[in-house]
Amino acid sequence: MLSRMIIMVIISTVLMSPYALLLRADKNDELLEQAMQIFGSLPDAMLSEKNPITSEKIKLGKILFYETRISIDGTVSCARCHPVALYGADGLNKSRGNDCKINPRNAPTVFNAAAQISAHWIGNRTGVEDQARQSLIGPASFGMPSYEAAEKRLKELGYTNLFKAAFHGERNPVTADNFAKAIGCFERTLVTPAPVDAYLKGENRALSEQQNRGLKTFIETGCNSCHFGAYFGGQMFQKFGVNEPYWKYTKSKTIDDGRFEVTKIEADRYVFKVPVLRNVEKTSPYFHDGSVDNLGEAVRIMGKAQLGTDLADSQVKEIVLFFGSLTGIISEQALIIPLLP
Amino acid sequence: MLSRMIIMVIISTVLMSPYALLLRADKNDELLEQAMQIFGSLPDAMLSEKNPITSEKIKLGKILFYETRISIDGTVSCARCHPVALYGADGLNKSRGNDCKINPRNAPTVFNAAAQISAHWIGNRTGVEDQARQSLIGPASFGMPSYEAAEKRLKELGYTNLFKAAFHGERNPVTADNFAKAIGCFERTLVTPAPVDAYLKGENRALSEQQNRGLKTFIETGCNSCHFGAYFGGQMFQKFGVNEPYWKYTKSKTIDDGRFEVTKIEADRYVFKVPVLRNVEKTSPYFHDGSVDNLGEAVRIMGKAQLGTDLADSQVKEIVLFFGSLTGIISEQALIIPLLP
Repeated sequence: MLSRMIIMVIISTVLMSPYALLLRADKNDELLEQAMQIFGSLPDAMLSEKNPITSEKIKLGKILFYETRISIDGTVSCARCHPVALYGADGLNKSRGNDCKINPRNAPTVFNAAAQISAHWIGNRTGVEDQARQSLIGPASFGMPSYEAAEKRLKELGYTNLFKAAFHGERNPVTADNFAKAIGCFERTLVTPAPVDAYLKGENRALSEQQNRGLKTFIETGCNSCHFGAYFGGQMFQKFGVNEPYWKYTKSKTIDDGRFEVTKIEADRYVFKVPVLRNVEKTSPYFHDGSVDNLGEAVRIMGKAQLGTDLADSQVKEIVLFFGSLTGIISEQALIIPLLP
Repeated sequence: MLSRMIIMVIISTVLMSPYALLLRADKNDELLEQAMQIFGSLPDAMLSEKNPITSEKIKLGKILFYETRISIDGTVSCARCHPVALYGADGLNKSRGNDCKINPRNAPTVFNAAAQISAHWIGNRTGVEDQARQSLIGPASFGMPSYEAAEKRLKELGYTNLFKAAFHGERNPVTADNFAKAIGCFERTLVTPAPVDAYLKGENRALSEQQNRGLKTFIETGCNSCHFGAYFGGQMFQKFGVNEPYWKYTKSKTIDDGRFEVTKIEADRYVFKVPVLRNVEKTSPYFHDGSVDNLGEAVRIMGKAQLGTDLADSQVKEIVLFFGSLTGIISEQALIIPLLP
C-alpha cells in the first residue's frame, strides 16, 4: 500500500515535470509524426487466424526448431540456417543444407519473419508455416524424400506425445502440417522490440542526433517507399535494380531471375521481396545472394540501384547508425535452448 | 536470526526423526557404500590449475562455442557437433565438419568432458583446451589453414575487446591458445548433476528398485572396472574387444586401430578411451564409430566384448534403467544462447 503510494507520487511528479512537457513536445515533432505514420507500432507477437498461438505449440515448435535428426543426413535443423546467436541468420552468402548442398539464396532471419507477405525472397513460400513444411522435403534443406518419411522419422524420434499435447484431440497429430504449425507458432513470437520502438511511441530521445538525421534521410530519399510498416520491410515485392540491372551494383556471381521463377510473368523478372530491416546490422551478408558484406555498402547500392541517388558518405553513415536503433531484444524464451526428446 | 533459529529446529527435528534413522540405515547399505567408493562425488566444476575459471573467460568461451564464422566455410561451430539441445553430442555416427567432411570418429558429448584423461577417443587431444585449439585447424572440423588465419578472423569478427576482458593485461590476447582457454573454461563448468548423485550422497531412494538392481549388476559384472569415478568413465584407455575383435560385435564398417594411431605401440591397437556414461541415454549412437544406435544393444555388446558375459535381458534392461539415473541437469547458464559480436 505504502509502496503503491510512493509510486503514485513519483508518477505525478514526473508528469508535472519539465521532462514530461518535453515528452509531449516530442510528440509534435514532425519527423516523429511522419515516422509513426510510416512504421506504426510493433505488436507483441505476429498473429495468424489460421495458426493461433498456444503455449503447447510454441513449446513443440521451439523443440523442433533445434531438431537435426529430422533431416536426411542428420545435420540440418531450422537453427542451422537461422541460429539465434547470430540473430536468426547464418552469416553465409547462401546457406548449406543436407550433404552441404547450397541453397539458391541467402537465408533471411527468422526474427520478425512471420508478419511478412511471404517467406523467402521470391514469394515461393506463402508464410513461415509453409516455409517450415516445405523445408522438410527441400532438396537443399532437410532433404527428406517425402512428407510421409518425415512424419515416420518424427514418430521414431519420440515426438508423438508432444504433438498430441500441442494438437489436442487430433487422431493422428504427427503430420508435416502440424510440424509446420508448431514451428510457425514459435516463430510468430519472434519479434524484437528495439530502441526505434521507444521512439515510435513518442520518446524522441530514444534516437541519437545522428540516428535522427539517418531516419530523416531514410524517409527523404524514399527508402520507406519499400521499407515501410512495423518491420521496416517485408510487405511487398520490388524489382532489384529499378533503372539498371542489380548486378551492375552488387558483387553477384550469377543472375537470379527472382520472382519470375515463380510467376513466369515478365514484369516479375529480377523482382524480390523487400527484406525487413530490423536487426539488419546483425544479419550480414546482404541481398538475395548475400553478395555484399558491408552494411554501408549495401545502403549505398540501394541508393543507386533503387532510388537513383548517390548518397553522401555522411548520409550513408547516418542511415547505418539509424539502423542500429532497429537492433532489438531477443526474448528470454527464444534464447533458452530446449532439450530434445 | 529468528529464521535461523527456525531452520535449526527443523534440522534437529529431522535428525531425530525416523526419516533420519532411515537415511542413516541407507548409508550402511552395502551397495551404496560400494558405489560411493567406486564413483565418489561430482564436483561443481572441473577445475584446472593451468586454466583457472573466471567469469570473463566463461563468457567469451560460451560465445565462441557458437561462432560458426571462425570455420573456413562458415558452417562449423563447437555447437554444431556438440549441440546442447542433444546433450552435447550431435546424434551422428561421425560428425560432419566444414564442407561436409566426415570426422574420423563419433563426437563425444562436451558435458562432463573436461575431467577426462584426454579429449577424443584415442588420446590425441590432451584435454578440452587442446581439443578446442586443434579444432581450429582440424581438416574435418573448422578447417582453417593456420592458427594465424584463425586469429586474424577472430579479430575481424570483432572479438578483440572480449579477449582483452578475459585475458587482462596481455598485449596480444587474441590467440588460438586463449581461444582454447576460453572455450575450455566454459566447458569446465559443464557438469550435469543427476539422480545418481543424490544416491551417492546417501539417499538410497534416489534410485528405483530396478535401477538399484541395474547398479548391482553393473558392479558385479565388472563394468565399473573401466567406468569408474565421478563421471562413470573417462579415466583410462582400454582395448575394445578384450577377447575377440570388437567388430565381431558392433556394426563397424571399417576397422579403427584406435590409440595405436597415436603411439604406434602394438599394445595400443584397438585401444580407445573409456567413454563417460553420464547422460548416456541421451547421446546415441554409441562407440567410437557410432555404429550402434540402441543403448540396450550397446550394453549387451559391452558385456560380450569386454567382460565375456552374456547379460540376461533383465540385466540389460535394469542397467539401461540405471543409466537413466545418470541423466543430469544442464545448468541454466549452459542453456542460454549468447549473442555474437
